[in-house]
Amino acid sequence: MLFALQYDEILVNALREDLGRAGDLTSNLTVPAQARCQANLVARQPGVVAGVEVAARVFKLLDPDIVVERKVSEGARVEAGTVLVHVSGSARTILAGERTALNFLGRMSGISQATATGVAQLNGTRSKLVATRKTTPGLRMLEKWAVLSGGGESHRFGLDDGILIKDNHVALAGGVVQALKSVQQGAPHLIKVELEVDTLQQMEEIVRVVDREKLRLDAMLLDNFTPAQLRQAVEQVNGRFILEASGGITIDRLSEVAASGVDLISLGALTHSVRNFDVALDVVESRVAAHS
Amino acid sequence: MLFALQYDEILVNALREDLGRAGDLTSNLTVPAQARCQANLVARQPGVVAGVEVAARVFKLLDPDIVVERKVSEGARVEAGTVLVHVSGSARTILAGERTALNFLGRMSGISQATATGVAQLNGTRSKLVATRKTTPGLRMLEKWAVLSGGGESHRFGLDDGILIKDNHVALAGGVVQALKSVQQGAPHLIKVELEVDTLQQMEEIVRVVDREKLRLDAMLLDNFTPAQLRQAVEQVNGRFILEASGGITIDRLSEVAASGVDLISLGALTHSVRNFDVALDVVESRVAAHS
Amino acid sequence: MLFALQYDEILVNALREDLGRAGDLTSNLTVPAQARCQANLVARQPGVVAGVEVAARVFKLLDPDIVVERKVSEGARVEAGTVLVHVSGSARTILAGERTALNFLGRMSGISQATATGVAQLNGTRSKLVATRKTTPGLRMLEKWAVLSGGGESHRFGLDDGILIKDNHVALAGGVVQALKSVQQGAPHLIKVELEVDTLQQMEEIVRVVDREKLRLDAMLLDNFTPAQLRQAVEQVNGRFILEASGGITIDRLSEVAASGVDLISLGALTHSVRNFDVALDVVESRVAAHS
Amino acid sequence: MLFALQYDEILVNALREDLGRAGDLTSNLTVPAQARCQANLVARQPGVVAGVEVAARVFKLLDPDIVVERKVSEGARVEAGTVLVHVSGSARTILAGERTALNFLGRMSGISQATATGVAQLNGTRSKLVATRKTTPGLRMLEKWAVLSGGGESHRFGLDDGILIKDNHVALAGGVVQALKSVQQGAPHLIKVELEVDTLQQMEEIVRVVDREKLRLDAMLLDNFTPAQLRQAVEQVNGRFILEASGGITIDRLSEVAASGVDLISLGALTHSVRNFDVALDVVESRVAAHS
Amino acid sequence: MLFALQYDEILVNALREDLGRAGDLTSNLTVPAQARCQANLVARQPGVVAGVEVAARVFKLLDPDIVVERKVSEGARVEAGTVLVHVSGSARTILAGERTALNFLGRMSGISQATATGVAQLNGTRSKLVATRKTTPGLRMLEKWAVLSGGGESHRFGLDDGILIKDNHVALAGGVVQALKSVQQGAPHLIKVELEVDTLQQMEEIVRVVDREKLRLDAMLLDNFTPAQLRQAVEQVNGRFILEASGGITIDRLSEVAASGVDLISLGALTHSVRNFDVALDVVESRVAAHS
Amino acid sequence: MLFALQYDEILVNALREDLGRAGDLTSNLTVPAQARCQANLVARQPGVVAGVEVAARVFKLLDPDIVVERKVSEGARVEAGTVLVHVSGSARTILAGERTALNFLGRMSGISQATATGVAQLNGTRSKLVATRKTTPGLRMLEKWAVLSGGGESHRFGLDDGILIKDNHVALAGGVVQALKSVQQGAPHLIKVELEVDTLQQMEEIVRVVDREKLRLDAMLLDNFTPAQLRQAVEQVNGRFILEASGGITIDRLSEVAASGVDLISLGALTHSVRNFDVALDVVESRVAAHS
Repeated sequence: MLFALQYDEILVNALREDLGRAGDLTSNLTVPAQARCQANLVARQPGVVAGVEVAARVFKLLDPDIVVERKVSEGARVEAGTVLVHVSGSARTILAGERTALNFLGRMSGISQATATGVAQLNGTRSKLVATRKTTPGLRMLEKWAVLSGGGESHRFGLDDGILIKDNHVALAGGVVQALKSVQQGAPHLIKVELEVDTLQQMEEIVRVVDREKLRLDAMLLDNFTPAQLRQAVEQVNGRFILEASGGITIDRLSEVAASGVDLISLGALTHSVRNFDVALDVVESRVAAHS
Repeated sequence: MLFALQYDEILVNALREDLGRAGDLTSNLTVPAQARCQANLVARQPGVVAGVEVAARVFKLLDPDIVVERKVSEGARVEAGTVLVHVSGSARTILAGERTALNFLGRMSGISQATATGVAQLNGTRSKLVATRKTTPGLRMLEKWAVLSGGGESHRFGLDDGILIKDNHVALAGGVVQALKSVQQGAPHLIKVELEVDTLQQMEEIVRVVDREKLRLDAMLLDNFTPAQLRQAVEQVNGRFILEASGGITIDRLSEVAASGVDLISLGALTHSVRNFDVALDVVESRVAAHS
Repeated sequence: MLFALQYDEILVNALREDLGRAGDLTSNLTVPAQARCQANLVARQPGVVAGVEVAARVFKLLDPDIVVERKVSEGARVEAGTVLVHVSGSARTILAGERTALNFLGRMSGISQATATGVAQLNGTRSKLVATRKTTPGLRMLEKWAVLSGGGESHRFGLDDGILIKDNHVALAGGVVQALKSVQQGAPHLIKVELEVDTLQQMEEIVRVVDREKLRLDAMLLDNFTPAQLRQAVEQVNGRFILEASGGITIDRLSEVAASGVDLISLGALTHSVRNFDVALDVVESRVAAHS
Repeated sequence: MLFALQYDEILVNALREDLGRAGDLTSNLTVPAQARCQANLVARQPGVVAGVEVAARVFKLLDPDIVVERKVSEGARVEAGTVLVHVSGSARTILAGERTALNFLGRMSGISQATATGVAQLNGTRSKLVATRKTTPGLRMLEKWAVLSGGGESHRFGLDDGILIKDNHVALAGGVVQALKSVQQGAPHLIKVELEVDTLQQMEEIVRVVDREKLRLDAMLLDNFTPAQLRQAVEQVNGRFILEASGGITIDRLSEVAASGVDLISLGALTHSVRNFDVALDVVESRVAAHS
Repeated sequence: MLFALQYDEILVNALREDLGRAGDLTSNLTVPAQARCQANLVARQPGVVAGVEVAARVFKLLDPDIVVERKVSEGARVEAGTVLVHVSGSARTILAGERTALNFLGRMSGISQATATGVAQLNGTRSKLVATRKTTPGLRMLEKWAVLSGGGESHRFGLDDGILIKDNHVALAGGVVQALKSVQQGAPHLIKVELEVDTLQQMEEIVRVVDREKLRLDAMLLDNFTPAQLRQAVEQVNGRFILEASGGITIDRLSEVAASGVDLISLGALTHSVRNFDVALDVVESRVAAHS
Repeated sequence: MLFALQYDEILVNALREDLGRAGDLTSNLTVPAQARCQANLVARQPGVVAGVEVAARVFKLLDPDIVVERKVSEGARVEAGTVLVHVSGSARTILAGERTALNFLGRMSGISQATATGVAQLNGTRSKLVATRKTTPGLRMLEKWAVLSGGGESHRFGLDDGILIKDNHVALAGGVVQALKSVQQGAPHLIKVELEVDTLQQMEEIVRVVDREKLRLDAMLLDNFTPAQLRQAVEQVNGRFILEASGGITIDRLSEVAASGVDLISLGALTHSVRNFDVALDVVESRVAAHS
C-alpha cells in the first residue's frame, strides 16, 4: 500500500505534461462548459489489472468534484469488457483526463498481466518471480506495485535496500573475500547480502571461502546458468543460501527454470519491455446541464 | 533539440529514485573511495539508438568530474558491440549511475529502433510514421525525441498543440457542424484541425458539410479503415485534406497501409509497448588511485 | 478552461512570497484568532474583468474553510462598485490573502480591460486582436487567459505550438526557400507555418517562390506595414494566406489598421505594458466569535 | 545583491514556459545545429535599466557554453542604441532564449526607468520614493531589485518584515490603543511599527494617545492627504515619527507632494502598472561552424 | 499563526523520507488493510508543548479520512500522561505516520519546554528571552513557532528582516561610523538597526559617535558581557537603546543576567541543542473492519 | 558516500530560508561589493566532526567562484582551534553563507561527537552502536551520515528497508505467529526481519514458536531489558538471532549494556537530542579589491 503523497507528484506531472499551458483545446472549444457525462474505463482484453487506484486518482486530482468508483481491486482478474473504474462529472474534465488515466492503467496492467502469466507457470514450484531495477525512470514505485499486484515480488527497490555484489564490485574490491569482509563490517543489520556467481565452479569456491573465513552471505544470484546447472547448484547448496536464477530467462521458459528448485527467478522484461494492456474510456451517458 | 533544463529534473528524479536515502550500499562498502575506472556503454544488439545524450548527462549530473564522451550521435545505426558512450572517473560514481543510464538508453533506443524498423517499410511511399500521446507518463518529451531519432514524426505533444476532434467531442458538441464551427471561431491561427472519421460514408458526408458550410478542416484521422478503404479515401479526398490512418495497425502491416497513399500512419505501440534495447556497461579498466 | 493543478503553484508561490517565514505579523498581533469577517472584492472602475476564479482560489488555498462566492464570471463587464467575489471566514486569513488576491485580479483585469477596449474597435471588421509572447515571465498561462476573457485571441503559447519564421531564422537558414523547405519536412502536421515579411516587395517575392517551389506556408506576419501597405497586401494575397499585422500598433490605431482587412492584429502591449485595474477588498462585517 | 539561487527558479520556469515540451520548433527546423552567432541586447529608448544580470543569466541557464558579457551595470543610465549585454554561441540557443531574456529586461527596466523619473523629481527634498507590495505575483524579488536600481526604496518585502496597521486591523483589534498595545508586546524588536491615518484630526488624536499611553509607534502612513494637509502633518509631528504619504499620487505630482516635507512617498504604480522598456536582440554576426 | 501552505512541504518531505519508495513494509505485511484503530499522542513528561497542530496535520496529509482531534492547544502546559492529539482511522495509516508525527512533536515541544523554563526565570524582570538564527536548517519556521509557544520571542527570522552589524561588518565597512552611515541611507524604514558591542569601553565610544554624527541606531547586542558589565551598560544607556545580552549564557544563569535590566537575552541553545520532549503514540483500541 | 544531488535541495532550502526575499541586508549595506576575504570554519571544542563536505558545499552553492578547501575529512578527530574548512572569495557571500554552514556543521558534528563518545565505550565488546529513525524531519540522510562518521551504524533509514515488528503490529496481526507468517510470505528476500520483545519469558516463547512453525526471524529488539536480563537473553539465544538492546539507554550506561554481549545497542538520543558542536567562522584576512 502506497499513500497518495508518495505518487501524486508523478500523476500531476503527467497531467501537466498532457495539458500544457493552454489545456485541452479540443474539448474546451467543442464541449459546453456545463456538459456532464458518465464514462467507464473498460478492459479490452482479459487479464490481471493494476493501476485502478492510480487511474481513479488522476480524475480526482484534476477535479475533486468528479465522482469516481473503483469497480475492481488491484490485481483483479478481468474479462474483456469488464468495467474497471466508473467516473461521472464535467465532460470536459473527463475527456481531459482520459489519456493520462489510460496511459497509467495500460502500462501498469501490462506489467501485472505479464507477471501473472509468469507466476502461473511457477504454480507448484518453490520459485518466486521477482522484478528487477530495470524499470521506467521515475515510475519504479508504480511498476513494482504492478508486479506485486500480478503476484510477483520485488527485488531491491533501489541501491540502498539490499546488497548485491556483482563482478565489477568484486574486481574493484580486490576479490570476493575482501568484498564480503567489507560488507560484513558495514552493512546495516536488517539488510541481507547477495553475491553474483557466474559458474558452478565459482559457486563452489565461494561456499568454501565463506565457510573458511566465516563470512556473512545470504543469497547467490546465479547468472546465466542453464536449468541443469541451476539444478546442480540447488543440490549442492542444499538450502543454505537463497538462490536466484537470473539472465537470459523469458516468460515461456519459467517453468523449466523453476523445476531446478531455485528460490527466485528474476526477469527484467517484466518492467523493461512492457506490452501495453488494452484499456479504453467509454462515454456511457452525456448531457448538457441546464446551467452549471 | 531539447535543452538540459527541460529534462534534467526527469534524470535527477530517476537517480534519486535509485539511490534512495542511503545511496549505493554495495559500491560504497566494496569499492575503495579513490578507485577510478573507465567504462563503455555498449550496444548488445544492432539497431538505431537514442538517448545517448541523456545517458551521458546522467553521469554528469551525478558528478561533474566524470569525463564523458559520446561515441555516436542520436539516431545512429549501430552494431552489436558498438560503444555508445565512454565514461571515466570515480568507480563508485560510475557504478552508481549505471542502471539509471542504461534504463534511459534501453527504453529510448527501444523506441528509436522500433520507429526505424517501421520507417524502413515506408520507404518509397508518401506516408510518414507518427507516434501518439500513448507515452509513458512523465517521459513524453524523451519518448518523442526517440521517435524523431528513429526517423518518425510526432503527432501532438499534448492536448494544447493541435485540435483533434473525436467522436465523443462531436456527440457532446451536438454534431460535426457545431463542433467545427466552434473550433473555427476559437482555435489559435497556427493550430490545425483534424477530425476522426470512422467510415467512408461518414467521410463523404463530412466533405459535403465542410464544403456547404465553408468550414475549416485540415486533416482527417481514418480510424480502423482497411487498406482498401484507406485507398478509396485517398482517392476521394484527392489531396484536399491531410489523411492519417490510425487504429489496429502493427509494424509488420505498415507497408500495406502505406500503399494506400495516406499521408500519415500513427502507431501507439511505438511508445506504449516498447521492447527494451539491449545495452550494457562494460568496465574496461580500473585502478585504485594512490590517494584521492 | 484551465485546471487548478495547472496554476495552483503560481498562486501558492505568490502567497508564500508575501507571507514569508513569519506570516502576517500585523494581523496576527492585532486581530483576535477567532475573529470572523465578511468582505467583498470590489471593482473601483468600470470595465471587463478577469481573474475572478484565481482571486477566489487564493483564499481557498490559504484555508479551505473560507467560504467564497464568485459574483461575476470571467470576462464580465462591470461597473465601479460591482462586487466580484464575496469571502467570509477567519478575519486573519482574509486579511493575509487580500494583497495577493488583489494583485492577481488587478493585473489580469488590466489585461482583459485593455483587450476589450481594443476588441471594441474591431467591431464590424474581419480582424481579430491577438496577444504575443511578450508576457510576464511565469504568468503566461494566466495572462493569455485574461486576453481570452477580454475577447482577444492568443497567438502562440510558446515556441513549440506554432512555426513563426523571422528574419534571423531566414538568414541562418540560408534564405527563405531553404527555411520553408526545412519546415515543410519537419513540422508536426497540426502546426501551421507563418513567415515574417518586412516589405510589400518581399511579400510578392515570397508568394512567387512559394508557388514555384510548391512550399507550405499558411500565414504571413506583416511587420511595421502602414495601413495603406496592409491594404495592398490584403488585396494581393486575396485570402490565400492568413495575414497578421504587427509592430508599432497602439490600441487607438486599431480600427485604422483593421480597415485594411487583415485577419489578425497582434499587440504586445496587451500583456507587456499592463495598466492595473483598480480593485479593492472591503470588509463589510466583522465580529469576534464567542470562541473559535 | 541577490544570489542566483534565490531567483534561478523564476528564470528556469520562464524558460520552460516558453520552450514547452517540444522546444523551439522554428529554430530547430530552420537553423543548423552547428550555427553560431553573436548578438546584442540593445536598448531602443533612453533611460535607466535593470535586469541586466537576469537577462545574462537566462542564456547561461540555457547553456553554460554561451559567452555572456554584461556591458552596463544595474541602474545604468543608457541611450537608445546602448548595448546592454553581448552574447555569443550556438545560434539556436540564443534565439531560443531571446524572448525570455527580453521579457525580464523590458519589465525590470520599465520599473527602474519609472522609478528614476520619480526620484529625479524628489531631488533637493527630504522625501524618498518607495515601492509597495503591489507587485507581480512571484516576481516581487526582481521588481524590488529594479526599484532599488532606479534609486527608489523598498517598503516591506512581505507581510513579515514590518508592521503596518491599517483601518481593518484597528477595527478588528477594537481600537487604536488596543492594536498598538498588542503590537508592542509581540513585535520582534528589530521591526518598526507604522499606522495608517486618514485625517489630520485622527493623526492628532493618535499622537495624544501614544503620549498618554506611552505606546510604541515609529511611523505614520498618511492616506490620501492633500499636499496642504501633508505640510500641516509634517509641522505638527515635527520629526517625531517617520511620515509616509500614500494614495492617489502619480509620478508627475511627486515634487508637489515632496514639498510638504514628508519622509517617504509610496507609489503602487511603480510596480503594478509597468510600461515595458523597449529592448531588442540584434544578431550582429552569424556563421555555420565547419562542424560542431 | 502560520498557514498550512507555508509548512506542508516540510511535512510531506518528512513523510516521504520515512516511507521511501516501498512504504511501511512491516505494517503492510502484518496489519490487515481494513483494520481500524484509535490512538493517542501522549506526553510522557510534564512540560509546555508545541507542534500539536503539526502532528495532527501529518496524519491528515497521509490520509484525509483519518479523524484527528487536537486535545490541547499550542503552548499548553501538560502533565505526563496528557493526551495531546487523538487519531482514529486506518491502522496502517496511523502506524505509518507515527514516527514522523512524534519526531515533529518531540522536537518542537523540546524547544517550547526549554523556552518556558527560561521564561519562568525572567518572571518579574524586564527581560525577554529571544531565540537566534541557530536553528535546524529547513525548520526555522517551525522552531521559531515553538519558541513563541513557549513564551519566548524571535529575533530575526533571517538575514533580511533586521540589521545586525557584527564585528566583521564593521571591519569590512571601514569602521563603525561608515557602517552606520551606509545602513542609515539604505535600510528599509520599518527595519531597525542593532550593533554588536564587545566591551563597555567600546559601547561608550559608540554612544559618543552616534551622538556626534547623529546616526541612526536602535539596539546594541552586548556580546559576552558579565552580569556586572551588563548592569553598568544598562545604567549608562538609560533606556536610550534596546539592549540585548548574548553569548555564553545558559538557561540556569538567566535570572542572574536578567537582574542587570537588559531588554533581551538571546540563547542559541533554545534551538541548536534541543533535548527531545518525550512523547509516544498509544493505540487505545483496534479492530478489523468487516470489510473496508 | 552521498551524491550532492541527494542533498543539495536541503542546502538550497536552508540558504533560501536565511536569505529570504531581500537577502543579507546588513552585509549588502555595510560591506563593499568588491570586498574579498579569507575565512576559516574552526572547531571551538575538541571532538569528532561531520558535515565538512556539507558546509563546504553551502558556499559553492551560493557562488561557484568561492574557493573552498576541506582541511579535515568526515569523521576526523579535531582539537579546539582546528581549521575544518578554509574559504576565500567575495566577503558578502562568505558572510551570507556563514550561519547556514555553521548550522549544518554544528548539528552534524554534534551527532558524530556523541556517537564517537558512545562508540569509545563499546571498545573491546561485540556491540555496535546504532541510531534510530528519531531524526530531525527532512534531515535523516545527513544525520545518519553523521552517525556513520562518528563510528556508529544506521538502523533502518525508513519504513521500507527493514522489517521491525512491534507490539502494535503483533496485536493487529492477531498474534506473533500470524505476523511472522505474513512477513515470511511477503518480505523482499534481501530484507531481514526483527521482532520487538518486552520480557525474557516472551522471548523464550517466541523462540519456541519460531522453531515449531519453522518461521523466518533474523533479529530481536529487546525493549527496556536490564543488563542482567540482556545477559540472560544473550546466553539463551546463543548467537541464533541478532540481538538489539533498546529503550531507556543513555550514553554513560553503554559499556554496562554492552557487557551483556548484545550485538547492537540503539540510541534515539544520538539524533533526537543533539548537543550542538561549537564551531565558528573566523575572518582571517580581508581587503577591498581595486575593482571587482
